[in-house]
Amino acid sequence: MSGRPLDVLEASLGERVSVRLKSGDEYVGDLAGYDQHMNLVLEDVAIPIDGGVEEEAPVEDTTIIRGDNVVSITP
Amino acid sequence: MSGRPLDVLEASLGERVSVRLKSGDEYVGDLAGYDQHMNLVLEDVAIPIDGGVEEEAPVEDTTIIRGDNVVSITP
Amino acid sequence: MSGRPLDVLEASLGERVSVRLKSGDEYVGDLAGYDQHMNLVLEDVAIPIDGGVEEEAPVEDTTIIRGDNVVSITP
Amino acid sequence: MSGRPLDVLEASLGERVSVRLKSGDEYVGDLAGYDQHMNLVLEDVAIPIDGGVEEEAPVEDTTIIRGDNVVSITP
Amino acid sequence: MSGRPLDVLEASLGERVSVRLKSGDEYVGDLAGYDQHMNLVLEDVAIPIDGGVEEEAPVEDTTIIRGDNVVSITP
Amino acid sequence: MSGRPLDVLEASLGERVSVRLKSGDEYVGDLAGYDQHMNLVLEDVAIPIDGGVEEEAPVEDTTIIRGDNVVSITP
Amino acid sequence: MSGRPLDVLEASLGERVSVRLKSGDEYVGDLAGYDQHMNLVLEDVAIPIDGGVEEEAPVEDTTIIRGDNVVSITP
Repeated sequence: MSGRPLDVLEASLGERVSVRLKSGDEYVGDLAGYDQHMNLVLEDVAIPIDGGVEEEAPVEDTTIIRGDNVVSITP
Repeated sequence: MSGRPLDVLEASLGERVSVRLKSGDEYVGDLAGYDQHMNLVLEDVAIPIDGGVEEEAPVEDTTIIRGDNVVSITP
Repeated sequence: MSGRPLDVLEASLGERVSVRLKSGDEYVGDLAGYDQHMNLVLEDVAIPIDGGVEEEAPVEDTTIIRGDNVVSITP
Repeated sequence: MSGRPLDVLEASLGERVSVRLKSGDEYVGDLAGYDQHMNLVLEDVAIPIDGGVEEEAPVEDTTIIRGDNVVSITP
Repeated sequence: MSGRPLDVLEASLGERVSVRLKSGDEYVGDLAGYDQHMNLVLEDVAIPIDGGVEEEAPVEDTTIIRGDNVVSITP
Repeated sequence: MSGRPLDVLEASLGERVSVRLKSGDEYVGDLAGYDQHMNLVLEDVAIPIDGGVEEEAPVEDTTIIRGDNVVSITP
Repeated sequence: MSGRPLDVLEASLGERVSVRLKSGDEYVGDLAGYDQHMNLVLEDVAIPIDGGVEEEAPVEDTTIIRGDNVVSITP
């Protein structure tokens, strides 16, 4: 199980991650925390414009995402 | 796991938070309580008008939200 | 966690509460019981007319609501 | 938690109950059994005609309903 | 809890049962086994024609149905 | 509980099974493994053409199916 | 239970796998990790073009997929 999912999250703390939700929404933010349900804490959150990662519309300082909404997390 | 999701909720007690639900509805209120399922207690609850946080239509004094409806919580 | 969701339910026993379900339905009734899943027992249940709480169409004496249908409970 | 949901079910054994499902279907029958998941056993089951409880189309002698389909139970 | 759901299933072993699924599909077969999740084993399985129980189109010798698909089981 | 669902799966190891998913998709393959969640391992997997079991379009050597997608398994 | 699903995942570490999600999306990547929920870590992730495995559009270096989105994994 080398590189378990939660280990990768732990290693990504402080890094910018992209989170895709089941609703189709995407959040980009600095990963500030998580738990075993993949509940996430993001900081300096932005929503990508036109699916691009270069331009971002700032949204909120801190956002908690409930894990059961998550499809994928890309550090 | 610095800054776990429930720790951020604990630190947000008494603060105004915005809660997005899977239905697309949004609640804004003072966070008065929560539990490990992210069931929430909000007070002085309002629903943002036109998605804006400035103007709010007052709704209810206290509202319990069942956690499995929650997408995100923004303190 | 001051004012946990289940504590607010406990304090609301005997009071009239409004319960919104995921189906969009709303029940108004006296909260007669609950459990840790937010399964609820309502008495003197009514369904609000036109979303108003003043006028109510009486429905049933007692109704058990399974908790996983609940979006929010407003005492 | 006076009048917990399962206590109300226990007190309703042998009584005629109306069960609403997430599919919108409704069953009326004598409550012959249940368990902690709100799985139910109904006997002399009927489906209300035009949503009325007076006229009923008989359906089956005994029906087991899996609890996760249940919205509400009205004794 | 007299006549709990799983007791009724136990008493129905070897009998012909009708199983309604959340998809709307219906299976008729001899109940050969079950477990606590209401996973079922049916034998001599048929699908009712026009919703009738008299005429049946034979389908399979043995079918395992995962319990979370089940709405109701009628012995 | 004679002939429990997992016992039938155990007895079907190495046999060709047909698996119907909630999406409506169907997989046919040799059952190479399973676990208590009904997660499955199929080998020499094919997808039936026109719902028939005679003609099959080969798809993959080995496929793991997550159990919560499964409707039924027919050995 | 020879060849349990998680054993097949363990044996597939480092190999290229194709993951189909409930949304219909498909990811192809090197399996770098997993856990008992079938949460997955993929590296050198690509999305197949026109459903083909030959041509791939590169997407991300590393992606964590939450297990409850997974339909099937093909090593």
